[in-house]
Amino acid sequence: MNKKNKRSVIVGQSGGPTAAINSSLAGVYRTAKDRGYKKIYGMLHGIQGLMEERYVDLSDHIQSGLDEELLKRTPAAYLGSCRYKLPGIHEDPDLYKRLFEILDKLEVDCFIYIGGNDSMDTIKKLSDYAIISGSEIRFVGCPKTIDNDLALTDHTPGYGSAAKYIGTSVKEVIRDGWSLETPTGQVIIMEIMGRNAGWLTGAAALAKGEDCDGPDAIYLPEIPFDVDKFVDKCRNLLKKKESIVIAVSEGIKTKDGKYVNELSDLPKYVDAFGHKQLTGTASYLCNLISAELGCKTRAIELSTLQRAASHCSSRVDILEAYEMGGAAMKAADEGGSGEMVVIQRISDDPYQAGAEVRDVHKIANDERLVPREWINKEGDYVTNEFITYVRPLIQGDVAPIMVDGIPRHLYKPGFHDMMNK
Amino acid sequence: MNKKNKRSVIVGQSGGPTAAINSSLAGVYRTAKDRGYKKIYGMLHGIQGLMEERYVDLSDHIQSGLDEELLKRTPAAYLGSCRYKLPGIHEDPDLYKRLFEILDKLEVDCFIYIGGNDSMDTIKKLSDYAIISGSEIRFVGCPKTIDNDLALTDHTPGYGSAAKYIGTSVKEVIRDGWSLETPTGQVIIMEIMGRNAGWLTGAAALAKGEDCDGPDAIYLPEIPFDVDKFVDKCRNLLKKKESIVIAVSEGIKTKDGKYVNELSDLPKYVDAFGHKQLTGTASYLCNLISAELGCKTRAIELSTLQRAASHCSSRVDILEAYEMGGAAMKAADEGGSGEMVVIQRISDDPYQAGAEVRDVHKIANDERLVPREWINKEGDYVTNEFITYVRPLIQGDVAPIMVDGIPRHLYKPGFHDMMNK
Repeated sequence: MNKKNKRSVIVGQSGGPTAAINSSLAGVYRTAKDRGYKKIYGMLHGIQGLMEERYVDLSDHIQSGLDEELLKRTPAAYLGSCRYKLPGIHEDPDLYKRLFEILDKLEVDCFIYIGGNDSMDTIKKLSDYAIISGSEIRFVGCPKTIDNDLALTDHTPGYGSAAKYIGTSVKEVIRDGWSLETPTGQVIIMEIMGRNAGWLTGAAALAKGEDCDGPDAIYLPEIPFDVDKFVDKCRNLLKKKESIVIAVSEGIKTKDGKYVNELSDLPKYVDAFGHKQLTGTASYLCNLISAELGCKTRAIELSTLQRAASHCSSRVDILEAYEMGGAAMKAADEGGSGEMVVIQRISDDPYQAGAEVRDVHKIANDERLVPREWINKEGDYVTNEFITYVRPLIQGDVAPIMVDGIPRHLYKPGFHDMMNK
Repeated sequence: MNKKNKRSVIVGQSGGPTAAINSSLAGVYRTAKDRGYKKIYGMLHGIQGLMEERYVDLSDHIQSGLDEELLKRTPAAYLGSCRYKLPGIHEDPDLYKRLFEILDKLEVDCFIYIGGNDSMDTIKKLSDYAIISGSEIRFVGCPKTIDNDLALTDHTPGYGSAAKYIGTSVKEVIRDGWSLETPTGQVIIMEIMGRNAGWLTGAAALAKGEDCDGPDAIYLPEIPFDVDKFVDKCRNLLKKKESIVIAVSEGIKTKDGKYVNELSDLPKYVDAFGHKQLTGTASYLCNLISAELGCKTRAIELSTLQRAASHCSSRVDILEAYEMGGAAMKAADEGGSGEMVVIQRISDDPYQAGAEVRDVHKIANDERLVPREWINKEGDYVTNEFITYVRPLIQGDVAPIMVDGIPRHLYKPGFHDMMNK
């Protein structure tokens, strides 16, 4: 391979962080290095940081094989992330012009963006602009999201590790619930991320096995939530057992489209992006159950713990994330643009999957939900098909590199100040 | 050693579950077996279950060395726990008579109780009654509590694993907080268990290291909480950095003794034991900060996750728990009664510690708090002495035995039904 004309690569991370997104970054870096690029830049806080010319030379950060291993085990976006949707090209052509000037100044040949739906939209627009403007820069996307809601790919890197953490934590909470007898019975409600897609909440079913009954009910946002049926379900479950564990998605909605946590009178916070903060679903339901059934309740929100728990990550997930990063880099290196790499599953058992390349125009902004037939008739549990799908994705562990009893993450002196502007 | 006269041992678990309490159970079992006891019984749900003659033959449950290893890795009280305080002997002598009849029927020579303050009170009363009634049954306590608030012992089994989980999770959340830029800044408040003692909350400082700044402030229940100073602290921190992580104990109280979460107008649930549910401290403070400073906030309660996270347990803790179970059994076997085993620390670095025996009359109901000099002058962080104390207790890992991607726990068919009456 002719390496002498290869100049620079730039890579960015976007959207909600995961336990695997840095493994993709490591994969991009390794493949870019192996394919002879002279410089590998990292955007700080994605495209938003790039517009302010905030970037680093990744070789200052990844200085050894050990650093690469640490990076694979570091949760959250190493380079910082953003939630920024590029305007349409016609809406702000100057912005595109400016962005490409920055890329040209850095002698960028390949632009890799690791992210979810919004990030793939960015790849689409930038690759379109490259065509319009005659730029030879190639733009390729690498999927990432714990939500697993990206279309065309079998699953997304980041999902498997979050699913493994959720299954493990739900199982531990179930066991904890058995310990103490509660005269009134107790209902423990675990709130799991997923605004519209129930992939993460469904993973609570992974707790079920020869040594655990699993959660007693699972409510996904795909199915309208019926408050009265839910109370009845709890009432009936409490007749049979003393400690009930129920998994609910933060995004469950009643059939008139109202988020369950909005049924409460408590004030809600709307974040800077106009998203309502959806925490509080489990608390609301606990208060309700406690009032209706007079039993003890406990609300447990897995919050950002579930997307940052690299101490409990899945080996399949971390390795696939790494491979997908490499595959995105390979695609761009070989001339592809306006593409996203996807995971194509070949077989469930034995699990086999590989990277393929898709046209990003067919992907962006299409939210993939849990199929109705993977949810039971009553709408309160996932089926075996769901488990068959998710089980291979949580296999194997990535042992954290422990220093003095705590997992070590990649960090270079002054890194945090740099992130902080 | 003369084994022929040895008859039965009975062991029970009491109080809040931990990730290490079953390792103590495994230690009691192994030592009782090795010392030639014919039967080893386990009380179901502690002394409360025993009064209803609910117990199992532990050899039906621990059938192999593999079962012992699984038991060490199983969170929560395997035998079920209780929160029950025996009445004084003079208050209900019939209850004691009845209990001893049950123990005599089972030919019990040794009674081992794994638990916290209330459990040691149980050991005290039962051993007193044995003296009064001329019974030769020996009663020995084995310490356990994530709260680490038991007197006379350097620390309690269960604390180290919870501390390791807390340090790890706080570090992951801090890193996650760096990912996204928040124009308003964000304050993440992590609520950690500990009604009166701040040992667990202080463990948040373990996140601090070469690769992490650690939490920005830590509030323990030992220091009266000043709401105004807290708001000022957050305001000042937000001037320097964008993402702030603060650890608070669920039990922080204002200087007039009011729990912080009671400052809220929201209805509170009082559990069957009259304890106010203290969850909600972080939520209350988040709402306050959001209103006062206009920034984004996020409340994260570690809830029962922190006491059940055997997937992230400390090797030192699990092994000490096992040894303490064995030491309690040894003490009883050698004729001790009215005693509790304690951990005596010989040195911090290298860490060395061993089991010793103490008179339980000197222990019970004495709550051990974090010393004032291990908290900084401002009352918003722990000192290096605190870290020197806790650091050795989180060393090493106990790899979970993974089956199909999820940690396996000890379970025998029908076990849950049995626990459930």
